[in-house]
Formats: sequence, C-alpha cells, structure tokens
Amino acid sequence: MKYSYLGPAGTFTEAALLKMPGADEAERLPATSVLAALSMVDNDDADAAVVPIENSVEGGVTATLDAVSVAHNLHITAEALVPITFVLVATEPKSLDEVQSVATHTHGWAQVRNWAEANLPHAEYRPASSTAAAAHGLLGETPIADAAVCAPLVAEQLGLHVLAREIEDVTGAVTRFVRAAKPGPVPEPTGADKTTVMIPLPEDRPGGLMEILEHFETNGVNMCRIESRPTGFGMGDYYFSIDLEGHIAEPRVADALAGIHRISPKIRFLGSYPRADEKPQAVHAEVSEEAFAAASAWIESLRT
Amino acid sequence: MKYSYLGPAGTFTEAALLKMPGADEAERLPATSVLAALSMVDNDDADAAVVPIENSVEGGVTATLDAVSVAHNLHITAEALVPITFVLVATEPKSLDEVQSVATHTHGWAQVRNWAEANLPHAEYRPASSTAAAAHGLLGETPIADAAVCAPLVAEQLGLHVLAREIEDVTGAVTRFVRAAKPGPVPEPTGADKTTVMIPLPEDRPGGLMEILEHFETNGVNMCRIESRPTGFGMGDYYFSIDLEGHIAEPRVADALAGIHRISPKIRFLGSYPRADEKPQAVHAEVSEEAFAAASAWIESLRT
Amino acid sequence: MKYSYLGPAGTFTEAALLKMPGADEAERLPATSVLAALSMVDNDDADAAVVPIENSVEGGVTATLDAVSVAHNLHITAEALVPITFVLVATEPKSLDEVQSVATHTHGWAQVRNWAEANLPHAEYRPASSTAAAAHGLLGETPIADAAVCAPLVAEQLGLHVLAREIEDVTGAVTRFVRAAKPGPVPEPTGADKTTVMIPLPEDRPGGLMEILEHFETNGVNMCRIESRPTGFGMGDYYFSIDLEGHIAEPRVADALAGIHRISPKIRFLGSYPRADEKPQAVHAEVSEEAFAAASAWIESLRT
Amino acid sequence: MKYSYLGPAGTFTEAALLKMPGADEAERLPATSVLAALSMVDNDDADAAVVPIENSVEGGVTATLDAVSVAHNLHITAEALVPITFVLVATEPKSLDEVQSVATHTHGWAQVRNWAEANLPHAEYRPASSTAAAAHGLLGETPIADAAVCAPLVAEQLGLHVLAREIEDVTGAVTRFVRAAKPGPVPEPTGADKTTVMIPLPEDRPGGLMEILEHFETNGVNMCRIESRPTGFGMGDYYFSIDLEGHIAEPRVADALAGIHRISPKIRFLGSYPRADEKPQAVHAEVSEEAFAAASAWIESLRT
Repeated sequence: MKYSYLGPAGTFTEAALLKMPGADEAERLPATSVLAALSMVDNDDADAAVVPIENSVEGGVTATLDAVSVAHNLHITAEALVPITFVLVATEPKSLDEVQSVATHTHGWAQVRNWAEANLPHAEYRPASSTAAAAHGLLGETPIADAAVCAPLVAEQLGLHVLAREIEDVTGAVTRFVRAAKPGPVPEPTGADKTTVMIPLPEDRPGGLMEILEHFETNGVNMCRIESRPTGFGMGDYYFSIDLEGHIAEPRVADALAGIHRISPKIRFLGSYPRADEKPQAVHAEVSEEAFAAASAWIESLRT
Repeated sequence: MKYSYLGPAGTFTEAALLKMPGADEAERLPATSVLAALSMVDNDDADAAVVPIENSVEGGVTATLDAVSVAHNLHITAEALVPITFVLVATEPKSLDEVQSVATHTHGWAQVRNWAEANLPHAEYRPASSTAAAAHGLLGETPIADAAVCAPLVAEQLGLHVLAREIEDVTGAVTRFVRAAKPGPVPEPTGADKTTVMIPLPEDRPGGLMEILEHFETNGVNMCRIESRPTGFGMGDYYFSIDLEGHIAEPRVADALAGIHRISPKIRFLGSYPRADEKPQAVHAEVSEEAFAAASAWIESLRT
Repeated sequence: MKYSYLGPAGTFTEAALLKMPGADEAERLPATSVLAALSMVDNDDADAAVVPIENSVEGGVTATLDAVSVAHNLHITAEALVPITFVLVATEPKSLDEVQSVATHTHGWAQVRNWAEANLPHAEYRPASSTAAAAHGLLGETPIADAAVCAPLVAEQLGLHVLAREIEDVTGAVTRFVRAAKPGPVPEPTGADKTTVMIPLPEDRPGGLMEILEHFETNGVNMCRIESRPTGFGMGDYYFSIDLEGHIAEPRVADALAGIHRISPKIRFLGSYPRADEKPQAVHAEVSEEAFAAASAWIESLRT
Repeated sequence: MKYSYLGPAGTFTEAALLKMPGADEAERLPATSVLAALSMVDNDDADAAVVPIENSVEGGVTATLDAVSVAHNLHITAEALVPITFVLVATEPKSLDEVQSVATHTHGWAQVRNWAEANLPHAEYRPASSTAAAAHGLLGETPIADAAVCAPLVAEQLGLHVLAREIEDVTGAVTRFVRAAKPGPVPEPTGADKTTVMIPLPEDRPGGLMEILEHFETNGVNMCRIESRPTGFGMGDYYFSIDLEGHIAEPRVADALAGIHRISPKIRFLGSYPRADEKPQAVHAEVSEEAFAAASAWIESLRT
C-alpha cells in the first residue's frame, strides 16, 4: 500500500495519514502540493492520497474537494481529524531570549502571532514554504533561522529540541483530512458515516437550494457542511459542496440523492465513508430502512 | 354488468351513470342512499356504484369518499361530471300562473329560489325526498303538487311537460360523481388521470401538512382538491382527503405516496382513474419517467 | 339585540344561538334559509345571524362561509358547537309499534336510518323541509305523520312526548355554527382564538398552496381546517377556505396574513373570534409578541 | 480619510483599495495581516480597512468575515473585485533562461506552477511572506532571487522590468475585497446591493437551515453565497455566513432578517453595500415595496 500526501515529511497531513487504518505498514510518499498528491493516484504512483480539507478555525478549504472530484475523478474513502498544535524547536536547547530569528509558513506564523509577540518580541520572522520545511531548514550548514514553528510530528522525526509547546493562540483547533482513491467499492456502512457530494445549482431555478434541501428534509438526511462555490471564473454560477450524515447504502440517502439527480443531473458523488468522530446517527423511525421497505411493499401491493 | 346508484330513477346520479363506459348495456339499480348504493357492491348485488362527490358550487361532499373508503373499502375506478340544470315540469301544459304548488328536494328548491320568487310568487313549496321523487309524485291519483322542479332526465323518462328550462339561479354548476367498485386491477393510465387518497395527519407533528405537501412538491405532483376532515367525533384530530393529478403507475406519484406512507402509514389509496375532463397532464422533465429511471441507474452505479 | 338564524324554531341552529353570549335577552328571528338569515343582517333587520358551518361527521359546509364573505361581506364574531342528537317525538305517548309514519328532513332521516330499520321497520318515511318543521307538522288538524325525528330543543319548546332518545346512528357528532355580523370592531383576543380567511390560489403559480403555507409555518401559525373550493363554475380555479389558530391582533397572525396578501391580494378576512372549545394556544417563544418586538427593535437599530 | 489594508504596498488588496470611491485622495496604510488592518480601524488609526474575502477560484475565505464581525464588530461598507493576474519581474531585462531563482508567496507559486514548469524548469523557488514582499526583495544589496512573481501593481510601483505577463495557470480568476469600518450610517440603497449576515444555527433545531431559508423564500430574497462555519473549536456547532441580494432598507430584506432574528436572535448584521458588479436586482411584484405597503395597510384596516 502506497500513500501520497501533502509533504514534506512531518506535516499535519502526515500526522493525519498515520491515523488511517493500515498506515503503519504503508509506504508514505510526500508530494509538494495537494494537486501533486492527487496526481500520484491518477498515475498509479500511489494507491491513495491524504490531503487537508477543513479546519475548525478556518472553515472549509473546499478547493481540495474540487480537485478531488473535478480534476481527478477520485472518491473519498476515509477522513481523519488532527488537532492543530505548534511547537517552537531548535537544533539544541536554548532560552527564548537567544532566539533572534524564527522560520515557519506564513499561515503558521499567523496562528502563533500573539504568543510570539509576548515571548519572542525581538525575533525576526523568516517565511518558509511549509512548517515542516522550516524545521528541516534548521539542519545543515546554513540554517535558515535560530528556531522554527512546526508540528510536533516533524520535531520528533528530526530529533529537534522543543523550546515551547502548545504555542498556538487558539487552542483546540482541528483540521480535517481525507483519503482519496480511484473509484472502487464504497466502504461498508458503519452506522456513523458521511457522504460528500457536489451539486450544481439547477439552471434558471430561483430557489434551487430550497428544492435541493427539500429532498434532504423529506428523507430525513442532515447536512454537516454546506458551501456555495463558483463553478467557473465568473462570479455568477455556482454549485454546492455538501457533506451529509449517512451512507449511500441507506435508502434515505439514496432516495435523497436520486431526487436531486432529477433536478441537477450533473450532481457528483465523492464518496461515503466512516465519520472520523464515530458519532452514531440518530435515524428517525419514518426514514429507517424498515419504513422504506414498508412503503415500497405498499406501493407494490397497489400496483398489482 | 350491474350498477347501483343514488336513486330514484331520473336523478343527476343516473345521468352520471349513463356517462360511464358501457353504461348503455348495464342494468341500473336505484338505491335509497349513497350508503345503500355502496352496500349493494359490498354484497355483490352490484358490480359498481355511482355516487355524487363534489359540486362546483358547493365544493366537496367528502362524506361520500369516507364511506367509499372506510365503511366499504371500495376503490374509485371512474369519474363523471354532470351539469346541474333544473326544469319545472307538470303532467300537462299549463301557464306559470296556474302553478299553485311546487314539489322538490329542499336543496333543489334552494337552487331555484330566486327564479321561483320572480316567476311563481304565490306557489306553495312542498318538500320531497329527492327531485326525482317530486317528479314521480306528480303522477298517480293524488299528485303531491301542481308542478315539480327536477332534472331533465327524469322529465324525459316520465314524459312530463316542461313548463320552464334552466331555471337554476346559478348557471354553469357541475357536479362530480364517481364509480366505486371492489379493489381490483387499477385502470390503465391514460395520460390524464387522477388519484384519490386519504392521509391521516401524522400524530404529534405540528406542520404535518407541510411535510405531506413537500412529498408532492419534490415529486412534481399537483393537487386538484384538498380538504381537512375530522377523523372521528371530537373536533381535534383530522385527516386530509386529496385528489392528485397523475396515476399510481407513474413513478412520481408512487414516490410521493411512498414518502407519505413513511410519515403516515395509515394512508389509504382510493384509486387512480381517468379524469372526466380529459385534461392531459404537463409533466416536467425532472419528474418524467426518464428522469426517475436515470436517477435510479445513477444510484445503482454508485452502489456497485 | 336581534338575532336571525336558520329556522324554524327548534333547530340545532337555534340551540347554537342560545349558547351565544347575551342570547337569553336577544330577540330570535327564524329565517327560511342560511342566505335569508344573512340577508336580514344586510338589511338591518337583525344585528347578527347564526348559521351552521361544519359537522364533525360531515366535514365542512363551506358554502355557508362563501355566503358570509362573498355575497354578504359579513364577519364572523363568534362560534358555537352543538352536539347532534335526535329524539323521536309524538303528540302523545305511544309505543313504537304504533308509529306507522315518521316525518323528518332527508338528512335527519339518513342519520337515524339504522335505528329506524331496527325499531320502526314498518313505518313510512315522510320528508319535511327541516327536522323542526317535522315536529311542528305533528300539531294541528292534519298531522303530517304519527311521529317526527327532531332536535331535543324543538320537542321541549312544543311540549311533545319523547318516544326515544339518542337515536342517532353515530353518537358524539358535533356541528359548528358561527355568528355573522356587519364588519365592526374585531372581538378582543382571549388567548384561545380562531381566524377565518379565504385565500384565492395565486394565478399561474404551481405550488401556490406551499407558498401560502410557508407564511403560516414561518410565523408559527397552525391551521385547524383547510378546504380547496372552486371559485366559480368551471372546475379549474379555486381558493382555500382556512381556519387558523390565533387572532389578527397577534403579530404572528398579522405577519402571516400580510405575507399572503402580497402573493394573493384578494385574500378575504372573515373574522377573529374566541374558539368555542376554549382550548388555549401554545405559542412558541420564537413567535411570541416579545420575539416580534425584539426583532423589530433590532431592525430599527440597524437602519438608524 | 485613512485606509488600512493588507500590505505590503503593491498587493492585490492595494489594487482593490484603489477601486474604492475617494481612494485617490486617501492615505493608504499597509498592515502585516488582515487582523492588523482591522485593528487599525478599532484603534482609530484608520477610518476603514480593505481586506480580501473571496476568490472565484478558491471560494470563500470567510475567516476574514469572522474577524470583521466577531473580533472587531465592524461593518462592511463597500466591496471590490480585482482580476488575479501575475507578472514575472526583475530589476533589469533578462531572458527566462537567465532566471535561476524565483521568489513569491506559496499561494502565488501554486497559481503559476504549470507556467513555471514549462518556462522556468530549472529555477529554484524561494518562499516570501507575500507576492509584494517578493518584489521588494529583489531590490537592495542582497536580492532574495533573480526574479519575482507578483501583482502588476507592485511591479509598476517599484519600476521593475516585466519579463512575462499573465502567467497564471487559470485565467479569469477574480478576488473579492471588502471595506470594513466602524458601525455608522448604512450606505444608501442603489438598487444593486448586497447584505452580509452571520446566522448561528438555532440550537436543537434539526432542519434549522430550511427554517432560515424559508424566511428568505417567503420574502423573495436570493442568496449569492452561503457557507456553514464552525462556531468554535469542536466540529459540531456551526453558523451560516451568507450574502444576500438586497439592502436592509428594503422591506423584503428587513422582514426576512426580522423573521430569522426570532429563531436565531444572535444573528449579526455585517452591512448592506453596493454590489461591485452593479448588477441590478429583479424584484418580483409580490415582494416590492408597494406590495409590502399594501399588505400593511390591509392589516391595519382590519385591526381598526
């Protein structure tokens, strides 16, 4: 089993990969971007890719989902949640006063800014292409800085000294990652599943979102995420990127999606997979498999 | 073929019966009430019953539908529309001034009242148990009145003299009648069909009607009649008596009713049958049989 | 105070009238029809009319509501519920075997038919224009029958002998009556009120009923009765006759009706009045007067 | 007039600022981050801030909207759209073969990657904290690279040589920027306006989004953007970030928001402002100001 992922080694994405089932024995192949990681699956250089999707502080990064579906026609087969926490590291023990320069990715820097202003008021910031690259940059003959802000994983992998832990300004943040693979058998339902779809807004249908949501409502399907997204480069037309509670194997999910297919036939299915939080679904009696079976039997009895 | 109907001979109901296919050769059996006509079908004394349902002036008379469904477990297999027009008749020609007394059913009298006040200001009204009974009552040794208000059919059947035609105060009224028979094969879809159902309001579900209507809306099914009706003898709980456009053989109708069955499993199907007005249905592309088939095929492709 | 009502004296309608506040001291004026009773209010021959509307066995008799609104432009100011129970009466005590003929209105006869078949198998039925007229018809020189089926009230008023009580085939039936008067101040809200409206289906708006109901739903207004009714003489166009829980003085009711006025400007208001069953309304917090006031204050704060 | 903006000088954000009315004469104050730009308004160091919101390729960057509303309690008073196009620049003319190293922001690099692989296959990538910083970094004694990828504006400001234009892999991308200021008078309606709100999902209300959208639907208000966003640090609870067509001064917008305030009282109003695309709104007759006025007048007439 070979996994590509958004590298370099030591990113939060690699931490997410390590949470996937069977990851211990898998070969891990870092890629330089989300698109590159996905392309490795396309080209059969990897069996699956692990890429970041969403962050509980920053909301959706649904560009990744677009890439999974549109550019690569892959399906999501698993998700993982990774707590976002930063460490300040150096090649050897030193006091914070001794840190004159700090390397990290711009986004990482933004997330520890308050801590840095209070604790490293005089340190110069040096941008790096990723937090892991910053950590790697401390090694070698010409280190890029005295210290780096990075994920705990890369600090451990490189044997760096941790000068400070949990330095993020907002504690408790979580980032969501998915595993994408070529379309194949959908993972079995577990009773705690999610389904991801892209639904183009039906043309010339004002109130099109209501029409879509009514199919979820009449089938007792809850959404756990929705975002409108531009379909192209004008600002006008858009589609909805949606995560549902439930699995395509359940009749309530299948009926809702079949109904939406009728009004928006270009709907794309991106996968049904176990929820990372393993939160079981409360399925109301009227949308249970039994209720669907009873209704079908009744209709059948009328027709014959 | 034997038809029972709300008699006596010469009623608007018999006129409706005569519009049913094959009525010419059928045996026509008058009954003294709607329930009696339906009971004759129960007891195999008749193959089907023709009974009045709705009047374009007076709205629904849905008690008949309750009887068809609840008391008798019959299905509707056809409908007919009959224009409501009245004649003033006597056993021999006479002027209006000579008419000192007029017999008819109370409801018939109410519908010609303005005409009568203008044209028969001094005539005494005598109640009869039906307009046809009034016409019959003119014959024999002791006529019940000088003249009767009745349907054209009975005047013709009895050879009575028509003193005045179209004497109804409201012109253009139409009454709807249905043919009820024991459950059997549903009539074939014609492209211009109706389906009648009774839907108990789901218990403890405020907004239950909205839930029901959403199933019609998401499946592109229009209603042509709705009435809330008390289910019993308290004024609290009720059900909806509904006529839909479309036939149970159409997937859009079947899916809507299956969805409602899940939230209100005691729903009753009273029949799919050709519309008397033969008005063809405009079925939108997204609820056509093709759209349903394409959606099912898509779901199937995802699951396998 | 003068009340017209659907007579003659002794009808269920007079029984309903006697339940209206202040009825004891009112002058009671019987009319020969619902329309005649309403016309007396139009002509200032009466201050208000009491007429039947609905029957828990037979459902709505909404023709009366049409008359109240369209023909007469009256408002409903009160409602009353009267249990429907029948007595068999005669001018003197006699056994059932001695009853050879029975007079009553056709509808009354239909409601005691099973009892009559069991207990008066040989009695001849004689139609009367009302159950009260049947009772009156027992008196005088040429009685119309040996006995009459009528309401308890008229038996009492005329001092007739009751041969049998509660002879109705369906026990527990209740009929609803309303008091209609010229438009004037709306009765004060009591916390247990109803509002009656007529809403023409907006032209060329498939799904028009859903649009109407959404205004009720978003404002937390429940319906307690709905009927589609033909607007004219073709079977095509129709309006909805609806009873709501709540009073026009409540913002939730006013907002719902204002919203519907925008899509169906010919909506007619027939009155807000206390519920006969005095069942208090459970108003959810989000549609309470406080919630409306807070929302208005918030909008006002944004605009200034 | 003083504007803060996401700097340094020469960013797309400064280009957006220059599109704001009166920008020519305004003092422009670069800030190191979105939050820093917003804080300058808080502290009265600037009258307004210009910050990026949305990108037609990447979708919403709604973290900025959270900051505008939650952390800073500012309102949006204008928006601007800026085409995203990149140039490759150097301090002096040179051929592409001579470019051995290229500096830019990671995100900028991602957007020109295909072009760079084809045209600068051997150039080393050097991360910078922004595309403008990369351009500035070419100047001075120790240039950070041979060339930089940046916005046309900064190239012009610094007098750099343009080696290649429109090198972005995806052409036609547009980024959306807003101007945020302390709450004050809402800009006048122009007939082509947008309103931005944050709506917490009402607690314990499954189907809460449908309830919210029904208030838009019944008031004829279209959304042009919707995103669900986590409210905190767990993945469970969330709110909706929404852009509406229309202005708070319009009754249809005010009524929709007032209705939502009742079910989600913590709704936040982030501003009504002219649309950058100046696309006029088609307001249906039933939600016009006239329709609202007529409905209010009708309700008033019933109550008095």
